[in-house]
Amino acid sequence: MSRETVSHEDGAIYEFTPDLEALATVDSGAELTIETRDSLDGAVQTESDVIESVPEEVNAATGPIALEGAQPGDVLRVEIEEIRIAEEHGRVITIDGFGLLDGDADIEAPRTRMTPVSADGETLAFDDLEVPIDPVIGTIGVAPESESYTTLVPHDHGGNLDTTDMTAGSIAYFPVFQEGAMLAMGDCKAAMADGEMCGTGAEIATEIDVTLEVIDGDAVDIDLERPLVETDDAWKTIASAETLEAACELANRDAIELLAAEHGFDTTDAYLFSSLVGGLEISQVVDPLVTVRNAVPKAHLSSPF
Amino acid sequence: MSRETVSHEDGAIYEFTPDLEALATVDSGAELTIETRDSLDGAVQTESDVIESVPEEVNAATGPIALEGAQPGDVLRVEIEEIRIAEEHGRVITIDGFGLLDGDADIEAPRTRMTPVSADGETLAFDDLEVPIDPVIGTIGVAPESESYTTLVPHDHGGNLDTTDMTAGSIAYFPVFQEGAMLAMGDCKAAMADGEMCGTGAEIATEIDVTLEVIDGDAVDIDLERPLVETDDAWKTIASAETLEAACELANRDAIELLAAEHGFDTTDAYLFSSLVGGLEISQVVDPLVTVRNAVPKAHLSSPF
Repeated sequence: MSRETVSHEDGAIYEFTPDLEALATVDSGAELTIETRDSLDGAVQTESDVIESVPEEVNAATGPIALEGAQPGDVLRVEIEEIRIAEEHGRVITIDGFGLLDGDADIEAPRTRMTPVSADGETLAFDDLEVPIDPVIGTIGVAPESESYTTLVPHDHGGNLDTTDMTAGSIAYFPVFQEGAMLAMGDCKAAMADGEMCGTGAEIATEIDVTLEVIDGDAVDIDLERPLVETDDAWKTIASAETLEAACELANRDAIELLAAEHGFDTTDAYLFSSLVGGLEISQVVDPLVTVRNAVPKAHLSSPF
Repeated sequence: MSRETVSHEDGAIYEFTPDLEALATVDSGAELTIETRDSLDGAVQTESDVIESVPEEVNAATGPIALEGAQPGDVLRVEIEEIRIAEEHGRVITIDGFGLLDGDADIEAPRTRMTPVSADGETLAFDDLEVPIDPVIGTIGVAPESESYTTLVPHDHGGNLDTTDMTAGSIAYFPVFQEGAMLAMGDCKAAMADGEMCGTGAEIATEIDVTLEVIDGDAVDIDLERPLVETDDAWKTIASAETLEAACELANRDAIELLAAEHGFDTTDAYLFSSLVGGLEISQVVDPLVTVRNAVPKAHLSSPF
């Protein structure tokens, strides 16, 4: 069975808009390989290639891919099966005006460190340290409801979520706001810390195997407003906002809604229960909006779909 | 070999001050059992016992315990060997004016839910759900440098850190600011989510087995300014501040300092490396100051002591 390939060379976007036009259209159930270029469009190939300021176009997202029959109110299910590294090195950089410690006198920006991939493909080198390769999709999302968001910004449509759980073995769920959903993804990292403090992980080109499905919104009890990710052992709501506190509130509310729907709790009991298991996690603290998730172990929550 | 017991009935504090007087004095290497009462001093025994507002005295911390010979500039090592549940139920509550979703029209405050401990001591009941018991020390700290902090507040001396890693198997390290260090702990939970969103975990009385050691500050390369916790697989800096963003900055700077000291990195390279492994984690988002940690896997960082 051959997988259809959708490459960034065929098309990529730098903005999620409500009126995206499809690069490809596939049926629900499609198995695809999505090729992505690195978030800096190949501009950094050696340590002397530094990025002076955040580029106007960054985080190219391959797509958009329309799902046949997807309608507003439906849910798009993206099973992430494998992410393969597609070049011989990643790069991790500082950019003036960007990052958690931006403006600190001890931090040099711009600086570039190249992180070569080992011969066996298992690790990156940073100086003489070996970092395990664990690829993450940084930017993944769908056409938003009404506003437009560059691929530097995360919001309810997904976008630049920079969430380590967007990795092989996970299943991501997005609200469908527009006909066809219009999925796009890119900005992958060979490795990334929760928080993405300096503003990047080890940025790298990849090939991503996914299976896409449309879930009929009429068959779902909950009203999915924001992205959700299913890992081996947890369901995690994902929310982006101007502050971490505001993102925590949104992510916790979404977790409360899932717990209340499953267990028949009122909002207060679901809130109390949410304070006992799993909990809040940081995705990233650097993009113009910041992103948080609220994990609920699968022992206490089954699929809402 | 008998362990000395220090009980909250012998003495407990509600404020960490620079001039604490010792309840007990022990030698470095002492193995103790520390008995703690629940954070609400036993005021909540049924679901009709509700807490109308945050009590003036809350989070009783058993102690203080002076370490013979501990001097400012030293480090106090607290190995947490076992935490035993010492009553038959925990309680999780909302209090008006407290908690992540405080003021939300859908959240009832005050409300109390009792969480009975199962016969085998392995789980708590919340309605018909079973929550694994995984006890956490909520408040743990030493006499601060100059300011005083009630046991509701976390800061560089520790205090109300509400950090799930303060659990059996972990080793906590605190800067010694005052002669004797003056350790105190309490406010334990039978279970708690990262974030402690409603403002409590399942608050419960416990017996904590610890081994205490003084590490000579002159023999240590780094200048420990805030608490640090060692888990099975990571070193985690811990920082508290007015906002999560500010706490993230402090925790990341501390992790950078550890990485730079070990690997000879300059600050910028340590910052870049910190963005590839482990990362930022949320401890709690509800105490008057909020608490964050920055995990660095032990694969990339050995003991700074």
